Amino acid sequence: MRDRPMGQLRWAIADGYIPAESHGPGPQMTSHEAACLLNAGDRDASVRFTIYFADREPAGPFVVTVPARRTRHVRFNDFEDPERIPRDTDYACIIESDQPIVVQQTRLDSRQAENAVFSTIAFSG
Amino acid sequence: MRDRPMGQLRWAIADGYIPAESHGPGPQMTSHEAACLLNAGDRDASVRFTIYFADREPAGPFVVTVPARRTRHVRFNDFEDPERIPRDTDYACIIESDQPIVVQQTRLDSRQAENAVFSTIAFSG
Amino acid sequence: MRDRPMGQLRWAIADGYIPAESHGPGPQMTSHEAACLLNAGDRDASVRFTIYFADREPAGPFVVTVPARRTRHVRFNDFEDPERIPRDTDYACIIESDQPIVVQQTRLDSRQAENAVFSTIAFSG
Amino acid sequence: MRDRPMGQLRWAIADGYIPAESHGPGPQMTSHEAACLLNAGDRDASVRFTIYFADREPAGPFVVTVPARRTRHVRFNDFEDPERIPRDTDYACIIESDQPIVVQQTRLDSRQAENAVFSTIAFSG
Repeated sequence: MRDRPMGQLRWAIADGYIPAESHGPGPQMTSHEAACLLNAGDRDASVRFTIYFADREPAGPFVVTVPARRTRHVRFNDFEDPERIPRDTDYACIIESDQPIVVQQTRLDSRQAENAVFSTIAFSG
Repeated sequence: MRDRPMGQLRWAIADGYIPAESHGPGPQMTSHEAACLLNAGDRDASVRFTIYFADREPAGPFVVTVPARRTRHVRFNDFEDPERIPRDTDYACIIESDQPIVVQQTRLDSRQAENAVFSTIAFSG
Repeated sequence: MRDRPMGQLRWAIADGYIPAESHGPGPQMTSHEAACLLNAGDRDASVRFTIYFADREPAGPFVVTVPARRTRHVRFNDFEDPERIPRDTDYACIIESDQPIVVQQTRLDSRQAENAVFSTIAFSG
Repeated sequence: MRDRPMGQLRWAIADGYIPAESHGPGPQMTSHEAACLLNAGDRDASVRFTIYFADREPAGPFVVTVPARRTRHVRFNDFEDPERIPRDTDYACIIESDQPIVVQQTRLDSRQAENAVFSTIAFSG
């Protein structure tokens, strides 16, 4: 992996949404949305999230470090700086990194008794 | 984001389907299919949907505006002009924009008591 | 759409599987796997499926026509010529078309009382 | 398929996770995560998995052979050499092959009574 780290520098998620309700034991079964980041290279990656909304200017940047040869599964629920992401609100996201990374989005929705889940590789390009 | 807005001008969804039944409180738990659109650029995007069916000529265009630096999560359930999308009917969709956008499709199916959900970045190219 | 029809000529699905059991009213709630095909162009597309297994030579071709400006949501459950796809068996699939098409895979799994569903744009390239 | 086998040599999955609990009859309903591999070419493929974690150096390689014209749906649950993948732990994965293959990730989560499932074509590039 040393000569050409896998991934891209810019990614997008268009369907962002954190369900407001949850069933089941947390943190595993708490309704959440995650951006799973893989940095397979040998340099730490500084990753900036910008959050877009339907009716206001974007929020951010939210900055996360992914060390070399590590993965971080970041929950949007946990963002607090510079602000908190509102629940039950449509959003979208651009993710920019200074090193190549791979981004996959996953949502677990436990608003009802039995959870639903989806995941997709984010858009790059 | 200013020098090269992220996204593409043309997108496709091949599995379109609006379930006819729902369980749970609306609008969140109403069975629906959504095209989530992100316009991260600095110019408003005019977006045209053309809907393809199994046994008739395409319908549309359905026109939606996504303002600069905004996201819109559009429900196919809500299309009414030039016509309504029938429920419980296979369809597909081409989405064309005059500005680069990112498109992600999500379906929530609450025909049974516990909802199921999927999401995927649409096809571009 | 007339000058450059959207799509690709060759697609792949690596996770093929038809669950053997179902709950709920058919055909909607029957466990199934579908390849949703969109032909947005102006020429009919002849589409050939080749099915790969873990422990035998491939099966097929299974041939399907998608008329111009139409979508067809094909269930693997329904393939019978040249043979039937076995249930509860791992498979994969290459889909080749003589016209550009878009392919999206969807599985509905109703083995348990509440259905689960996933969908993803297939791989092209 | 003989002149240009379909697929890529390098793939990534960023959201790896094996749920620790299961409901329902195994092995079908056991919570699991799978990498579904399609080798549509005429030469056997030797495939190496490297697993990345949040807080330690990567594990692997885990080596799998996919014979020519075959698919293998590999469960991460079953990896034992050189080590076992821990349950209820975030991970990610790089998959490298000496022949072109197609990779699709699928997770079945049966921690609750009704299973949830997702699938996505992995990232290549």
